[in-house]
Amino acid sequence: MIETLAVVGATGAVGRIILQLLAERQFPAKNIKLLASARSAGRTVDFGGTPLTVEEMTPDAFTGVTVAIGSTPDEVALEFVPWAVEKGAIVVDESAAYRMDPSVPLVIPEVNPDAIRDHKGIIASPNCSTTQMVMALKPLHDAAGVRRVVASTYQAVSGAGLSASDELRGGMRGLLGDEPEPRQIFPHPIAANLIPQIGSLRDGGSTSEEMKMVLETRKILGDPSIGLCVTCVRVPVFNGHSESLLVETEKKLTADEARKLLSAAPGVVVVDDLANGVYPTPRAATGRDEVFVGRIREDQSSPTGISMWCVSDNLRKGAATNAVQIAEVLAR
Amino acid sequence: MIETLAVVGATGAVGRIILQLLAERQFPAKNIKLLASARSAGRTVDFGGTPLTVEEMTPDAFTGVTVAIGSTPDEVALEFVPWAVEKGAIVVDESAAYRMDPSVPLVIPEVNPDAIRDHKGIIASPNCSTTQMVMALKPLHDAAGVRRVVASTYQAVSGAGLSASDELRGGMRGLLGDEPEPRQIFPHPIAANLIPQIGSLRDGGSTSEEMKMVLETRKILGDPSIGLCVTCVRVPVFNGHSESLLVETEKKLTADEARKLLSAAPGVVVVDDLANGVYPTPRAATGRDEVFVGRIREDQSSPTGISMWCVSDNLRKGAATNAVQIAEVLAR
Repeated sequence: MIETLAVVGATGAVGRIILQLLAERQFPAKNIKLLASARSAGRTVDFGGTPLTVEEMTPDAFTGVTVAIGSTPDEVALEFVPWAVEKGAIVVDESAAYRMDPSVPLVIPEVNPDAIRDHKGIIASPNCSTTQMVMALKPLHDAAGVRRVVASTYQAVSGAGLSASDELRGGMRGLLGDEPEPRQIFPHPIAANLIPQIGSLRDGGSTSEEMKMVLETRKILGDPSIGLCVTCVRVPVFNGHSESLLVETEKKLTADEARKLLSAAPGVVVVDDLANGVYPTPRAATGRDEVFVGRIREDQSSPTGISMWCVSDNLRKGAATNAVQIAEVLAR
Repeated sequence: MIETLAVVGATGAVGRIILQLLAERQFPAKNIKLLASARSAGRTVDFGGTPLTVEEMTPDAFTGVTVAIGSTPDEVALEFVPWAVEKGAIVVDESAAYRMDPSVPLVIPEVNPDAIRDHKGIIASPNCSTTQMVMALKPLHDAAGVRRVVASTYQAVSGAGLSASDELRGGMRGLLGDEPEPRQIFPHPIAANLIPQIGSLRDGGSTSEEMKMVLETRKILGDPSIGLCVTCVRVPVFNGHSESLLVETEKKLTADEARKLLSAAPGVVVVDDLANGVYPTPRAATGRDEVFVGRIREDQSSPTGISMWCVSDNLRKGAATNAVQIAEVLAR
């Protein structure tokens, strides 16, 4: 049982789900404190039937906080995390701000829970696309040694915040009728379209999102020699990220062996019966905390490749669920 | 100039575009004859401002036909193609029925035009996803020898026929309002969703669509040793197929070399300036006859990989345009 848990960014898309999960899972904290920007302070938010008032995120707001879960943009994390650490809180941070800091553990509780012990006040939760991919890689890595991953993503708009869903909804309305399509969040129309850019340009022609998947995967699996070729694409889906993955391992795995390993992995559900049209889809994965894997096949173009289709609710296991799980480990 | 050109399946999604292209490109035929099933016979269709009446597809309808372009389901092709050949017509067939027949050339005019000469009455046009991929592979193959391709597709609903677009439109309406979502064409809801199945189950866990891309690519490039790992996914886009491609070559190519080779390839347009948000999208590619390639990068996970994003109007270069181009070669 911990004394006070703070949720920073409690009114955002992920913050709302964090509160829902804390209530559902009966998180062992005596007090729950909700923090957000001055703009949201004073609002009342439901917490398992009880109304809680959102307080302004200031340095003093972290006095007495044992653990803080932060779900904010990077620049907000860079501001509040030092305040919280200074007041003695342990921060579980969803943002990208501290993920690649060598002194900060980057954790998926099913994959590298032991890394939590080495924290110096901050524990980072990975990028949503990274988390679901690494959940699917981990059992194959333990059994056969992952050497290389080729990943193409199909990422939902919810990863771009609450107003991104409004933009997709408005775009759909525009395509069906005569209204203009809204264009504020995405660089191109998103309704009935695909945008092969998430984040900004990095060296070598990749985007920041693609580089997160490369670098975070190596850090979490503790193996900088794993090769990754990643292409991230925004798709007109409200929620649930999907990934087409080709995994090359040191040791050959058959599709059946891979299926067995994945079925036994905690937090992973195998949904794989193509003959009957059974495989993961983002709409079916929405609202669920697991990572769903299907279309598991042996690659005919490499000696050891396994290809698979991996889907998860990006706001849950990709963000809120993973952070709450880390906080639960801290509470024990 | 040829005597009589027949279009079989003139009232379908691709048939309509074939007629439009024949008129626009002033196809050198004295007569144009439109054929379709008994159900569509008698209908009047516009041909460059002139109304043409659709005739029923019967064996006798092919009397006097010089070249027939067929855009029909496989089972219809298996019926009409022998009738047409028997009457002395040369058939350009869009269906999959004859593509892998060793006596039938499978042709993309920019890639393997010489194969047309070997025809014995039938020339097949490839699957839409294959055509745009091979258009992008060909210049790299000629310069550096393609050894392996890892492809994940993002395929529009228009590839599943006219009523598939209605199903996506109805699904979008259902999600926005209170109407039920229609469910006739696809095995799962398609609006704001992804379906990682196109076609039916084949040996090894691939779908028929995935195997088309593997086998047709090898046949068109004339190299059965090329390895392919393909995952085909239906996305909620009305028109325009997209592909995330990783191409491993014998000889190393830099991204700049690949960009130059692709820019010089006939029918391929490079759209590649990520810093300014410039890359191909399916909505921008719709209505165009070219294959668009962007996000050209060197793969950091293999010695010679080039990754790229390839988009094309699947009803045009993926079907109608390619068939009309083959017929134009025959007319010369």
